[in-house]
Amino acid sequence: MSRRVLIDTDTAGDDTQAILLAALADSIELEALTIVAGNVEFDYEVENAKYTLDLADAADDVPVYEGSRRPLVKEFEHVDHVHGDGGLGGELYPDTDIPSADGHAVDKIVETVRESPGEVSLACIGPLTNVALAVRREPKLNDLLDEVWVMGGAVNTIGNDTPSAEFNFWVDPDAAKIVMEELDVNLVDWGLTLRQGAFDADELEPFEEADTPYADFFTTITRHAREFSKERLGVDSTTQPDSLAVACLLEPELVTEAETYFVDVDEREGMTRGYSLVDELGITDGEPRTRVVEAIDEDRFKQMFSDMLLHGDPERSL
Amino acid sequence: MSRRVLIDTDTAGDDTQAILLAALADSIELEALTIVAGNVEFDYEVENAKYTLDLADAADDVPVYEGSRRPLVKEFEHVDHVHGDGGLGGELYPDTDIPSADGHAVDKIVETVRESPGEVSLACIGPLTNVALAVRREPKLNDLLDEVWVMGGAVNTIGNDTPSAEFNFWVDPDAAKIVMEELDVNLVDWGLTLRQGAFDADELEPFEEADTPYADFFTTITRHAREFSKERLGVDSTTQPDSLAVACLLEPELVTEAETYFVDVDEREGMTRGYSLVDELGITDGEPRTRVVEAIDEDRFKQMFSDMLLHGDPERSL
Amino acid sequence: MSRRVLIDTDTAGDDTQAILLAALADSIELEALTIVAGNVEFDYEVENAKYTLDLADAADDVPVYEGSRRPLVKEFEHVDHVHGDGGLGGELYPDTDIPSADGHAVDKIVETVRESPGEVSLACIGPLTNVALAVRREPKLNDLLDEVWVMGGAVNTIGNDTPSAEFNFWVDPDAAKIVMEELDVNLVDWGLTLRQGAFDADELEPFEEADTPYADFFTTITRHAREFSKERLGVDSTTQPDSLAVACLLEPELVTEAETYFVDVDEREGMTRGYSLVDELGITDGEPRTRVVEAIDEDRFKQMFSDMLLHGDPERSL
Amino acid sequence: MSRRVLIDTDTAGDDTQAILLAALADSIELEALTIVAGNVEFDYEVENAKYTLDLADAADDVPVYEGSRRPLVKEFEHVDHVHGDGGLGGELYPDTDIPSADGHAVDKIVETVRESPGEVSLACIGPLTNVALAVRREPKLNDLLDEVWVMGGAVNTIGNDTPSAEFNFWVDPDAAKIVMEELDVNLVDWGLTLRQGAFDADELEPFEEADTPYADFFTTITRHAREFSKERLGVDSTTQPDSLAVACLLEPELVTEAETYFVDVDEREGMTRGYSLVDELGITDGEPRTRVVEAIDEDRFKQMFSDMLLHGDPERSL
Ligand SMILES: [Ca+2]
Ligand SMILES: [Ca+2]
Ligand SMILES: [Ca+2]
Ligand SMILES: [Ca+2]
Repeated sequence: MSRRVLIDTDTAGDDTQAILLAALADSIELEALTIVAGNVEFDYEVENAKYTLDLADAADDVPVYEGSRRPLVKEFEHVDHVHGDGGLGGELYPDTDIPSADGHAVDKIVETVRESPGEVSLACIGPLTNVALAVRREPKLNDLLDEVWVMGGAVNTIGNDTPSAEFNFWVDPDAAKIVMEELDVNLVDWGLTLRQGAFDADELEPFEEADTPYADFFTTITRHAREFSKERLGVDSTTQPDSLAVACLLEPELVTEAETYFVDVDEREGMTRGYSLVDELGITDGEPRTRVVEAIDEDRFKQMFSDMLLHGDPERSL
Repeated sequence: MSRRVLIDTDTAGDDTQAILLAALADSIELEALTIVAGNVEFDYEVENAKYTLDLADAADDVPVYEGSRRPLVKEFEHVDHVHGDGGLGGELYPDTDIPSADGHAVDKIVETVRESPGEVSLACIGPLTNVALAVRREPKLNDLLDEVWVMGGAVNTIGNDTPSAEFNFWVDPDAAKIVMEELDVNLVDWGLTLRQGAFDADELEPFEEADTPYADFFTTITRHAREFSKERLGVDSTTQPDSLAVACLLEPELVTEAETYFVDVDEREGMTRGYSLVDELGITDGEPRTRVVEAIDEDRFKQMFSDMLLHGDPERSL
Repeated sequence: MSRRVLIDTDTAGDDTQAILLAALADSIELEALTIVAGNVEFDYEVENAKYTLDLADAADDVPVYEGSRRPLVKEFEHVDHVHGDGGLGGELYPDTDIPSADGHAVDKIVETVRESPGEVSLACIGPLTNVALAVRREPKLNDLLDEVWVMGGAVNTIGNDTPSAEFNFWVDPDAAKIVMEELDVNLVDWGLTLRQGAFDADELEPFEEADTPYADFFTTITRHAREFSKERLGVDSTTQPDSLAVACLLEPELVTEAETYFVDVDEREGMTRGYSLVDELGITDGEPRTRVVEAIDEDRFKQMFSDMLLHGDPERSL
Repeated sequence: MSRRVLIDTDTAGDDTQAILLAALADSIELEALTIVAGNVEFDYEVENAKYTLDLADAADDVPVYEGSRRPLVKEFEHVDHVHGDGGLGGELYPDTDIPSADGHAVDKIVETVRESPGEVSLACIGPLTNVALAVRREPKLNDLLDEVWVMGGAVNTIGNDTPSAEFNFWVDPDAAKIVMEELDVNLVDWGLTLRQGAFDADELEPFEEADTPYADFFTTITRHAREFSKERLGVDSTTQPDSLAVACLLEPELVTEAETYFVDVDEREGMTRGYSLVDELGITDGEPRTRVVEAIDEDRFKQMFSDMLLHGDPERSL
């Protein structure tokens, strides 16, 4: 029996690959996408999600629920400069005509887990506004969920949005704080992404040369991000944080090292907005609760990714 | 035609009188009570609300919806020491057997205003968690509401919970910030309450001597609060902030002075958590939006209050 | 024997009158002025101070020490828009050729009190940077001083620089926090100034009509401030916070009501920078230490002020 | 001609080795030590410093000036649990009878650089209170100094005092912020220390077996720290951040990689007190000013250290 999964996403470049991974994997039943404010203008995110589902031939089966169009408390800014205008590289602006599902994303999350307690997992690959609202709407959310995977935070390393913070946590630090406090999270952070979730020019070449729709799509959406990476980091590469998180959910054996730590989020405005405190040394009084993925089987992850792009089946070599 | 009103309340002492005011006034149709975390333990608040409705013979007509059992982001503490244990003076613990309505308070607020755009007013006499969640759930909430009245804040004066903050804003400063930013609020603050919404021993004597169920109830719920006032402020008096707010909604002519100012709320932890910045001098760049009640017709308010307690009809002398 | 006093000042309009008060009073021996960053550009402040001493024929006896040209930690802004460009109304830019004394203001404060323990009082009528540095340089400063008078803070009322803060505390909130924590302060705040330290048009008329150098100077320096008051507060008046503080030091019987409270200062950036928490109700755990002046004999203060301007002798009617 | 150096230190374990390094090197003329609140009780720090100078036969030539006994603004706590009670391992409590020099540490720093502009370097191996006070006392301090070396901060890595902060920056974050803003700092951080400034059991063995006074002293002072490291980090090792900083000052060729970045310090209380923002990617608008040492010639550093302990001459192999 395949595992049931909800993906909460601010769909831009890397989110699309995570959605494809879930939509194309046999062992996962993707229940729905819920959209949250983050990477780019909300309406682009919604279209990006639908277009991606359509590409995977899953648009009929997987409804898209629109959720929070802004963070819980704070103001925020989009990052079109990272993903390209519109979020898919700057030249692709889908217009699918696929209708959104009726109802609010937060209600969908709450109702789904209430109907099937313990059976549905949540993959959170955007800011955590929807999920935090779901927790406040249903205080027992943690007990009702199977697994929770979050892409977010920068574990004792430099962030990607500010020096102190990763983007998802920065956008809605209040929501991130709530989620880390209330849910048993498996965390895939920006540091792990840089260490093991990046594809360099050599690794990207086969995808560029391939002539499959998934590989073409990937090449399109990463073009701008590679340029951005060259400018900022000085390397021609692209990172895939969101598919890394979904891949770990999909294939638990990917995770080779993980520890459970106390994690807190700085929700204050100022230089450390969205900072993720991860008490790796047990210095604070905080209770360890968050399982932080510290290393993965990188070869296997990249094999899954390649199998997805070239063969439409991420589980082909598992 | 009577005006439709929802009251969002953390029902303890002064909330009960506000509820009575609305339940007993002919010109208001009290649609529902929604309960929010605040004064005392949540389950006490729910029972206190039901008991009050029952006293007004309104329990069959006015459903009680349970809402947020904690603030949006921050931790908080109850204030049984102000209102007496349980919130009704310390000796009364209702057990009404009246069932709560199905559904969550936040959904009730959202659904009610969606069904009747512009027709329903909201009286917020507790921390603003439910209302903030409703705003995030329905971004057009402001347009969908008729009037919004909030009891909260301390307008450039000392607070009642900390020197810098009034209780409702202190409990959930994030929610208060959201509400002041997103809704066109009529604000009744703690300062106005102290100036014109307090009853001293002389004014209370007729209620103590009266032999009506409402007056008896009032004497019961204020006993502890009067002791608390004696200790903290050195005066034997009781303040009625919540009924002051509902009375202003009920009878617009009560308001003799009001100005519209920019209001912001400090949502940070620390010495100014819940501080209400009210820019009375127009020093900041903030856009004036909140109508702050600065003076009322105190005699008329107290007449309404007396008519309610002694005759069960707050509008008797209007 | 006259009492020895140091005045620490960010000399603009109202500071000049406080300096005159001390320089012209027989019962005070003004030891020195120390200049601190605040109202206007530092070099203007220095010249303003020297010019004022010269007007009082005291420039030979009272040395001027230059001190901190910026706050301890934070950035700040001048308020020429309040006092007029340069700080003396906008048309007077003294150039006295009087040299500053050798040495730093902080050293002067520390050395003076070390040489005469318990004999020298400090009147602080600017931001508290110099004084805070003196405390850190000499931890026993409190024991070494006679009295400390501070003009600063807004006691549970609206501020004059931001809605939450008075100017002196706003400029250097870290210093204000240090001073309130480490010294036994007599506090004259902005609220008292508004209630009892303001002169309206009627009260100012005799000074305008008088033909004395002090009255002329006063008319010059208040012209801009009166315009500013008209614009912001809608009243033609001028406030004299600094001379109010020095007058209280000079004539203790001016103070008719004073209470000792716990006072803290918010040193954080943000909407409450420089906020003065004054725990008038004893709600917090803070130890009461600061003597807050709550009421003065206003007639007597204004008589002193008038005697100073018209007769050059503030103590004439005492 | 040897270079003139002032060391500002909160003398406990690792500070002593830094002092020895400077006192025993021919190419450095150690002008004075200035003591600042930090590791352990202030009076222990003073004695520890004197004892160390005495061991190097330098007590007659190098005066010890006592400075700030507490941070600029915030409260702090000692870390005897790291260095052992008293700061030298827990069993050594020097009582040297050497008098402290007359005058305050801050004055000594200011006067020294004023007398010899551009000729004296400053090695800061404790919290930065004294140095910040010197900057505020002499705004041109940066121009008057030759080099400034600071041991402090945790450059995009976990801290040693809290997860977000290194000890020196945590103790006095306001001072650290001031120093990073006002001086051209060469920064040796906790991350570099962990990567290249730690000695493991194998490396320590020769020092334990040696029979020299310096090696004996080193063994004494590191005993407790090695235990602490075993408990917290799970490795038997000792870190030498302070001597790493002084060694880099002493021998510039130690530094093999260094970049100039914008560095800021979080001075707020809360989870990120003392956090060092280091903008390695140039994301912020901050002007790069701080030269961050990113790699050293570790072999050479350890050779210097060994030459010091075994032969009393850190420059023996240079
Ligand atoms: Ca994403
Ligand atoms: Ca209430
Ligand atoms: Ca002043
Ligand atoms: Ca040190």
